[in-house]
Amino acid sequence: MKIARVEHEGKTYYGVVQDDRVKLFIGDPSGAMAEVGLTPPLTECKLLAPVMPPNIIAIGLNYRRHAAESQMEIPKQPLMFLKANTSVIGPHDPIVLPHMAPDQVDYEAELCIVIGRTARNVSEADALDYVFGYTCGNDVSARDCQFGDKQWARGKSFDTFCPLGPWIETDIPDPENLGIRAVLNGQVMQDSSTSDLIFGCRQLVSFLSHHLTLLPGTVIMTGTPEGVGFPRNPPVYLKPGDVIEIEIDGIGKISNPVVADTASR
Amino acid sequence: MKIARVEHEGKTYYGVVQDDRVKLFIGDPSGAMAEVGLTPPLTECKLLAPVMPPNIIAIGLNYRRHAAESQMEIPKQPLMFLKANTSVIGPHDPIVLPHMAPDQVDYEAELCIVIGRTARNVSEADALDYVFGYTCGNDVSARDCQFGDKQWARGKSFDTFCPLGPWIETDIPDPENLGIRAVLNGQVMQDSSTSDLIFGCRQLVSFLSHHLTLLPGTVIMTGTPEGVGFPRNPPVYLKPGDVIEIEIDGIGKISNPVVADTASR
Repeated sequence: MKIARVEHEGKTYYGVVQDDRVKLFIGDPSGAMAEVGLTPPLTECKLLAPVMPPNIIAIGLNYRRHAAESQMEIPKQPLMFLKANTSVIGPHDPIVLPHMAPDQVDYEAELCIVIGRTARNVSEADALDYVFGYTCGNDVSARDCQFGDKQWARGKSFDTFCPLGPWIETDIPDPENLGIRAVLNGQVMQDSSTSDLIFGCRQLVSFLSHHLTLLPGTVIMTGTPEGVGFPRNPPVYLKPGDVIEIEIDGIGKISNPVVADTASR
Repeated sequence: MKIARVEHEGKTYYGVVQDDRVKLFIGDPSGAMAEVGLTPPLTECKLLAPVMPPNIIAIGLNYRRHAAESQMEIPKQPLMFLKANTSVIGPHDPIVLPHMAPDQVDYEAELCIVIGRTARNVSEADALDYVFGYTCGNDVSARDCQFGDKQWARGKSFDTFCPLGPWIETDIPDPENLGIRAVLNGQVMQDSSTSDLIFGCRQLVSFLSHHLTLLPGTVIMTGTPEGVGFPRNPPVYLKPGDVIEIEIDGIGKISNPVVADTASR
């Protein structure tokens, strides 16, 4: 089932996407939901970020070939970092190149786990029982800030740096065997499979839940495969007018235009 | 004015602390508030974390003498990292030594800024207009995780690793001239002043607001002065039975017991 958040005629709903229509609901997907009685066409709905996460937990260097292209060691255990939840935007909203750091903004296609019920100290065997579903994410990163600071949080937390969507797919029998791609202006830049993940979804949910409480709506960005922009020769960074798409087989596709920051310092 | 969050007779309120009594309110301190008509003694209220932050933004190496004891360079601009908001506990709640990393848990006394209204691209001159008030925080840190991962998020995001309180003090004429101390089992471990801050409160709010939207309730932990446990010879780490207090002149004191984790892996 595809669970979206949508704006329809000025109001915000949850929606179940079926073919080209959206059955609208109000309530909380991790609690009670009620049908509104409206099923507008998808074209009359604006897709919003499908979840507003309390925390966004991201995993670094979690694909073998991406660790290699980054010239970084493969971590012995999941390498956790955080993105500010204010960075979330919808599946078609613009990514703004921030005036503080406009020149080295990179894309990262990521499979995102959305937690469905509170998880704390759960086993790998039980971990997927706590997962609501999966969505596509772009872990947009200002490489100059990220590598200059050594701490990655600033370069990855600018407003608009976390496009999510287009919806949460709840029926993914095997999240570790999905094609995942990033497409920049029609050119395929990342083309891999979640089968290259070092730490899989069960391992990540269990490992993280032994550290902190995973509340419903928590998003775990599982890492990005090879093909990002910074290690290329010459490097490829996002510029105004670009369109960056992230697509995961069995989930869907997000497509975000890139724009300049019009705010002055 | 001292704005607390309290539990009184099983219900949660905001409260204005006046001498030894608490005037109870319902509502939202950044919006509308209504008096409940109750003013119980402080001793009949349980103080909760005074704010539930959407994001916790922390600043590393922001006191000159702490950067020196850590043998780290003074950053050229604020060094931002994030703590998961699920790590927040109240001013007297126990800090749990996590079963994943119980052996190198350290304290960090910090002046915390609480944002009062949405701040985006604000100037240093205007920055304090967006501040609701100040509170005491302990940026509890599992040093083995922090330094092993290089990314600090995991070692600083365990549940219970962010004691805050005892309340938000809204009347601080000069936040950069406050005595700040950490006291472990009665022994003074950190004894400094916010006058040693490298980047002050105006600079931090302005700088961060040029990166991300600071929502009401956002907590900015401004960094810790010298005297933390890990650089000592021998190092000092928290152990079950300890009591760690953080005190800031003009605000108040938090006092958290330290306990073992009873959950198994």
